[in-house]
Amino acid sequence: MRKILVIGAGRSASNLITYLIDKSEKENLHITIGDLSLENANEHIKGHKNATAIVLDIFNESDRKAAVKNADIVISMLPARFHVEVAKDCITYGKHMVTASYISSEMKALDAQAKEKGLVFMNEIGLDPGIDHMSAMQVIDRIHDEGGKMLLFESFCGGLVAPESDNNLWNYKFTWNPRNVVLAGQGGAATFIQEGQYKYIPYHKLFRRTEFLAVEGYGKFEAYANRDSLSYRSVYGLKDIPTLYRGTIRRVGYSRAWNYFVMLGLTDDSYQLEGSENMSYRDFINSFLPYSPTDSVELKFRHYLKIDQDDVIWDKFLELDLFNANKKVGLKDASPAQILQKILMDSWTLQPEDKDMIVMYHKFGYELNGKKKQIDSKMVILGDDQTFTAMSKTVGLPVAMATLQILNGKITTPGVQLPIKKEVYNPILKELEDYGVIFKETEVQYLGYNPDKL
Amino acid sequence: MRKILVIGAGRSASNLITYLIDKSEKENLHITIGDLSLENANEHIKGHKNATAIVLDIFNESDRKAAVKNADIVISMLPARFHVEVAKDCITYGKHMVTASYISSEMKALDAQAKEKGLVFMNEIGLDPGIDHMSAMQVIDRIHDEGGKMLLFESFCGGLVAPESDNNLWNYKFTWNPRNVVLAGQGGAATFIQEGQYKYIPYHKLFRRTEFLAVEGYGKFEAYANRDSLSYRSVYGLKDIPTLYRGTIRRVGYSRAWNYFVMLGLTDDSYQLEGSENMSYRDFINSFLPYSPTDSVELKFRHYLKIDQDDVIWDKFLELDLFNANKKVGLKDASPAQILQKILMDSWTLQPEDKDMIVMYHKFGYELNGKKKQIDSKMVILGDDQTFTAMSKTVGLPVAMATLQILNGKITTPGVQLPIKKEVYNPILKELEDYGVIFKETEVQYLGYNPDKL
Repeated sequence: MRKILVIGAGRSASNLITYLIDKSEKENLHITIGDLSLENANEHIKGHKNATAIVLDIFNESDRKAAVKNADIVISMLPARFHVEVAKDCITYGKHMVTASYISSEMKALDAQAKEKGLVFMNEIGLDPGIDHMSAMQVIDRIHDEGGKMLLFESFCGGLVAPESDNNLWNYKFTWNPRNVVLAGQGGAATFIQEGQYKYIPYHKLFRRTEFLAVEGYGKFEAYANRDSLSYRSVYGLKDIPTLYRGTIRRVGYSRAWNYFVMLGLTDDSYQLEGSENMSYRDFINSFLPYSPTDSVELKFRHYLKIDQDDVIWDKFLELDLFNANKKVGLKDASPAQILQKILMDSWTLQPEDKDMIVMYHKFGYELNGKKKQIDSKMVILGDDQTFTAMSKTVGLPVAMATLQILNGKITTPGVQLPIKKEVYNPILKELEDYGVIFKETEVQYLGYNPDKL
Repeated sequence: MRKILVIGAGRSASNLITYLIDKSEKENLHITIGDLSLENANEHIKGHKNATAIVLDIFNESDRKAAVKNADIVISMLPARFHVEVAKDCITYGKHMVTASYISSEMKALDAQAKEKGLVFMNEIGLDPGIDHMSAMQVIDRIHDEGGKMLLFESFCGGLVAPESDNNLWNYKFTWNPRNVVLAGQGGAATFIQEGQYKYIPYHKLFRRTEFLAVEGYGKFEAYANRDSLSYRSVYGLKDIPTLYRGTIRRVGYSRAWNYFVMLGLTDDSYQLEGSENMSYRDFINSFLPYSPTDSVELKFRHYLKIDQDDVIWDKFLELDLFNANKKVGLKDASPAQILQKILMDSWTLQPEDKDMIVMYHKFGYELNGKKKQIDSKMVILGDDQTFTAMSKTVGLPVAMATLQILNGKITTPGVQLPIKKEVYNPILKELEDYGVIFKETEVQYLGYNPDKL
């Protein structure tokens, strides 16, 4: 039996573990699932003979080393900052490793050692990063192989709620870490390049600089810019490309409304509000509005943020119960962002019957034989239920597939890797199609970066 | 002769040094002026027999220690972060010390040692902090001594250009460190309390939440909130005061126009622009505007920031030559804030004949014998010329006066101090009147915090 150790058995590991268990007979696998909670780990196994659940605290060095030593390959589904200790053990004991996280500088530093020992440390092989890299590189390599020259690359991804479960005015529910949604876009200006011109968007304007996208059968979406698009020039081998832009997808109207939270200061995580525990939602909102001895919080909100009386955006704020004087925040020494998260979780938490949806959209502009062309490539995938979500599929399946490919000697390039090589993305994208991860390509007129088609 | 060492002989030291030299005969003083530039130091002395200029690099430990050891009292006019090394030497050699800077935690940590050795370390005794503390505490103590209870304290200060030199559309010139003006308000939400309600203003709204002030003979001003007003509750002994607000004064209209720079992202100092050296001013502005193959930078600016065609604010931007395609930035790897500073210095640098102006405005609301009352206290002072500026007077004179009071045994309380005690503020405020620093008090109707008088 080949022994796979999976560390971290949260909900996002459902499809990953199920895939490996399903293959365990044919592929001669034994899967050990280590988690702080034995219950969590066991939940994925459902008594299958080829899988074992163990309690694993990665801060217990001897337990961690023993578990790694006993495996042939290690999958870390831990939060990104915890990978590196596991990775060092993998170096020590000569084990391959797979993660869905961005390569940190600490991980990068292990590259030479991994190469020396002939170990594959595959990272960024989930959804975003992961499927975005693979699906983009497949088309970019094809264009380059045909002799084309890339002129434009735009790439968008979003985790959303499925149309059948889309029943609030924001057309949004939390399908992933809510804290990341509240803090999205903070920490510096968004940077990208369009037609050779560098562009910079400060956080407080980010949600007013959206672009629109349409996906056949799913209607219209919008996207706001990710923080750092420029680093993808070197990763994707697009050094001199005049247009490179990456963004996050939301339903149309979300960003304009979200920007009111930014304007008020509700997304700030850098300080704590005095007396937050006993504040009402209404008190919280009022803290960010001018003092008045006579005016209502509602009118101050509308006036300060210039919301006309007939603007339907107002109903989005009412729906969140922002002005409720009886609902207490109940969080001690909380930051504005923490309180906003709590308020949003009242309304945006996925219900047991809700399904999620992932949308990915790439645009590839290029020149071939003197002609300018464009390919648009789109992928939509829906969750099955609350356990086998679209997020869990798209994050977990590529991780599981890469693990098996490494075990089977199909992925062999050693070192700290991300999935931008043909040996990785071709077989995995092919297999993902069986699970509904299907990109549809269309040729469209090349207009350059020119969203208004002027 | 009593020996005074002044470290740092920038322009802000003019009045300080002149005051001490003028008193040197009568008070039996010798003043040593240490600066990196002997020329700078000599410029203040003009050959006076009771003063000596020396080259002093405070990073040269032996020179620094020798200079401190040789003095009876040390004035540090260095940037605030450099005081502490001098302060440690003052502890070692048993010398008093005076600075115009906020007490840092490193300075605060020397309190016990200073007390043990009976040394006065007087800080925050310039303009703001300094004259603001003294003039506020004099009125607050008087109200408390009469049995009154403080209900409201609002305090505003600004360094501006004198009316006779006020000839640009922003009604502003740099009379102090331009970098601080560009970065003003950054680093966290502004926090204060009004009628018992905590209020928080994020940076990107700070310049749209101004209050208005009028000073007889000088017209109308506006003020935006300083970052942390709440800490003044403990400093001034106003623990339970329902309204406490501190702000920075500008001429009316400045803040609304400045906010466009904030909105664009031009005040960001956290990253560098690629190729900044060869950018034109126009390229710089365009980096923060959406890409367009057809539209002018001017129209994009107006549309993005919603500036109507008939809005006179537009002329403020034209006056700064923001859209000039021929003027080069000329700064390598510069942040947006550094480039904005350079552009503004083209227009806002004081000319040789220009004079500056300081405005300070306090409001004291209180209850006495069951009646609610308010005192407004205002001070305006103009500079004489480019050397003896209002800024140099108001920063340097209190420092010089405090130094002499300490030497003469009038200020005696040892430890790390700020000027909130009667023994300090009464004689200094009295003497400052001779130099034109005169607060005019008026009694006004008490309305609480209620700027619209509703």
